[in-house]
Amino acid sequence: MALKVQKYGGASLATPEKILYVADRIIKEKKKGNKMVVVVSAPGDTTDILIDMAHKIAKNPVERELDMLMATGEQQSIALMSMALINKGHKAKSFTGAQVGIVTDKSHTKARIIKIKGVEKIKKALDEGYIAVVAGFQGITEEEDITTLGRGGSDLTAVALAHALKADTCEFLKDVEGVFTANPHIVKDARKIDYLSYDEMMELASDGAEVLQNRSVEYAKNYGVKLHVRGTFTDKPGTIITKEDKNMEKVVVSGITYNKKEAKISLLDVPDRPGVAAFIFTKIADAGINVDMIIQNISQKGTTDLSFTILRKDVPKIKKVMDEIMKKLKFKKYLIDEKIGKVSIVGVGMKTHIGIASKMFKALADKKINIEMISTSEIKISVVVREEYVEKAVQEIHKAFNLGKSAIKQEK
Amino acid sequence: MALKVQKYGGASLATPEKILYVADRIIKEKKKGNKMVVVVSAPGDTTDILIDMAHKIAKNPVERELDMLMATGEQQSIALMSMALINKGHKAKSFTGAQVGIVTDKSHTKARIIKIKGVEKIKKALDEGYIAVVAGFQGITEEEDITTLGRGGSDLTAVALAHALKADTCEFLKDVEGVFTANPHIVKDARKIDYLSYDEMMELASDGAEVLQNRSVEYAKNYGVKLHVRGTFTDKPGTIITKEDKNMEKVVVSGITYNKKEAKISLLDVPDRPGVAAFIFTKIADAGINVDMIIQNISQKGTTDLSFTILRKDVPKIKKVMDEIMKKLKFKKYLIDEKIGKVSIVGVGMKTHIGIASKMFKALADKKINIEMISTSEIKISVVVREEYVEKAVQEIHKAFNLGKSAIKQEK
Repeated sequence: MALKVQKYGGASLATPEKILYVADRIIKEKKKGNKMVVVVSAPGDTTDILIDMAHKIAKNPVERELDMLMATGEQQSIALMSMALINKGHKAKSFTGAQVGIVTDKSHTKARIIKIKGVEKIKKALDEGYIAVVAGFQGITEEEDITTLGRGGSDLTAVALAHALKADTCEFLKDVEGVFTANPHIVKDARKIDYLSYDEMMELASDGAEVLQNRSVEYAKNYGVKLHVRGTFTDKPGTIITKEDKNMEKVVVSGITYNKKEAKISLLDVPDRPGVAAFIFTKIADAGINVDMIIQNISQKGTTDLSFTILRKDVPKIKKVMDEIMKKLKFKKYLIDEKIGKVSIVGVGMKTHIGIASKMFKALADKKINIEMISTSEIKISVVVREEYVEKAVQEIHKAFNLGKSAIKQEK
Repeated sequence: MALKVQKYGGASLATPEKILYVADRIIKEKKKGNKMVVVVSAPGDTTDILIDMAHKIAKNPVERELDMLMATGEQQSIALMSMALINKGHKAKSFTGAQVGIVTDKSHTKARIIKIKGVEKIKKALDEGYIAVVAGFQGITEEEDITTLGRGGSDLTAVALAHALKADTCEFLKDVEGVFTANPHIVKDARKIDYLSYDEMMELASDGAEVLQNRSVEYAKNYGVKLHVRGTFTDKPGTIITKEDKNMEKVVVSGITYNKKEAKISLLDVPDRPGVAAFIFTKIADAGINVDMIIQNISQKGTTDLSFTILRKDVPKIKKVMDEIMKKLKFKKYLIDEKIGKVSIVGVGMKTHIGIASKMFKALADKKINIEMISTSEIKISVVVREEYVEKAVQEIHKAFNLGKSAIKQEK
């Protein structure tokens, strides 16, 4: 008999029919003899609707009250899911974040979990044969103020509960069957990945593939909680996310990810002296703009070119900031390019293998796709290309590294 | 500086505009130097929408989870109202029933308040200059399960808080300006009542005029909490509900109320022997049917006629019960009449005045309105008439007892 934490997202709970379907899915696991803890998000787009309501009342709704408001979404889910389970003849009990004692710090709308006080309460319910249905996304401060954990926070709730309960498995039920080597809409041959390390998952998720909230993966890594991303509509195993082992390192590249949400900002002939980069990026951070890639090339004649990428939605904001910086630093010109795309390969095996980058670059060169920026980390290589070439780039790289189903079959 | 509890119903909170209006209303009181505790219901028809959702999931949703679900409505209200107040530049803080420690028994969907643990928390917030915005309708058991207090339960929350906080006044803000001598839609001359006793309020409310939840009035009576029913859209005083005093008793009839929601059931030639009435009404109660008036006349030849009224919606249910009772008791016949109306006069002065009933009956007789049933209590006289004569009956009785504005002016 295993103790299983399962997390279902809002899309799986958007209608009564879907809630009833998920209830059956949970019951199937329960009938296998598992003790079940189910973490649910708010149904459908409830959270967005609530935020809209708040903005009709106040331009900048105070965050304590926004949390109070948003937390009702998950509370509705746990009540409805428990009703569904009970109506189907099973014992079930709902728990809010407060009732489970998910204690967080006071950072409303993005709180961090400090501890879970109510573990015994859940264990008791499980021992009495209940399915415990826990509200994701929400917690409570020591002063009993309701908090929320930020976008995707239900994932974190699931991981933290799995850790606190010493659960045997922590599953994330999705409308996809797991994490894929590339987006199957773009690469027909894309293959489900069986195993990923925490770091790989984080690198893959930080771009387009929003499979799991990164903070929850980090939490899982810190506490060694094994995660399982799998399909709601299938019994087949999905992708296991766990700590690296030697087998994993044999796989050089695990997956390819991309996004078309960024814009490239290039500063030309910026004075090359200590403190300039710090000055620029402090100004940008102060404006609340998140920077992704940063590239600075070697200096010539005392000036250098500097490029970075930001989310396109921040372009209007960056213009104001750049004008201010340009005036201060007295450089000539900056360029904004919104027609870029970013393509990355991720894999722990990269650390110990050579020639990965060159293989990636060659795959692009062979198809005459020009690389505009390059950025690398230990387990990730990212390039910026023209937006229109992103799909092609993903397909070619996927082929070059033999990531597809067909490649696996050939090897066997 | 007074401590004021104000309660706003769901209709006053149905749209962002209304919430912002009510916020201004609260701020006006705060600016007078009052410490403000505001109790709010769920916005608009949120509670009904939530119940609908539940019924799409489960035919008979389990009550613990129904409470969990319904409680989200008021939680949304407190968050939105607090945002509105803060956005208008005032300190405000929301509190759920759990956060205020409104401890109830375990009777989900109709829980009774046992105590309020969090009084100090509210006092602290008030002392720090906050407007405390408290969720009505909801509480929490000793085991921290969320409960609700039944229809109109927010009224009870307000009264219980006013008592626990020793508030100077407990106000109920309505879209009417107070309690009237009769429904102003029927009686043009109807007059706002300045003072009512708790008992009068309860008798008036038990029929059509759903001004305050009766349990909350009973609670106020038990603890001597003075209530004030007044208009949201006016500053004028409304109706004060307090314990009887001698002045009150001078007013013989305080108000007239009516309903057209009942049906009359008549049992003809029922055996007149001990235990028969007990048998009949136990059967009816077992079927979950609420009986209002009961009339039994004197016995002739060992049998008697028995009549009672129930809500019309229970007519399909009563037929089954009656057929069973008829078979058992072997009486001949029963009649169901759904075309009746009930008209009542209420007033503490009745106790000490004679001739009230006859005056009422004469007012009806003069207009040839036939009385089909009569029932009296210490402070209420009710008659059943044909449904079509109800408005006329109310108007005539109102005139007979000089309850109108014009009558008051004449006396002056």
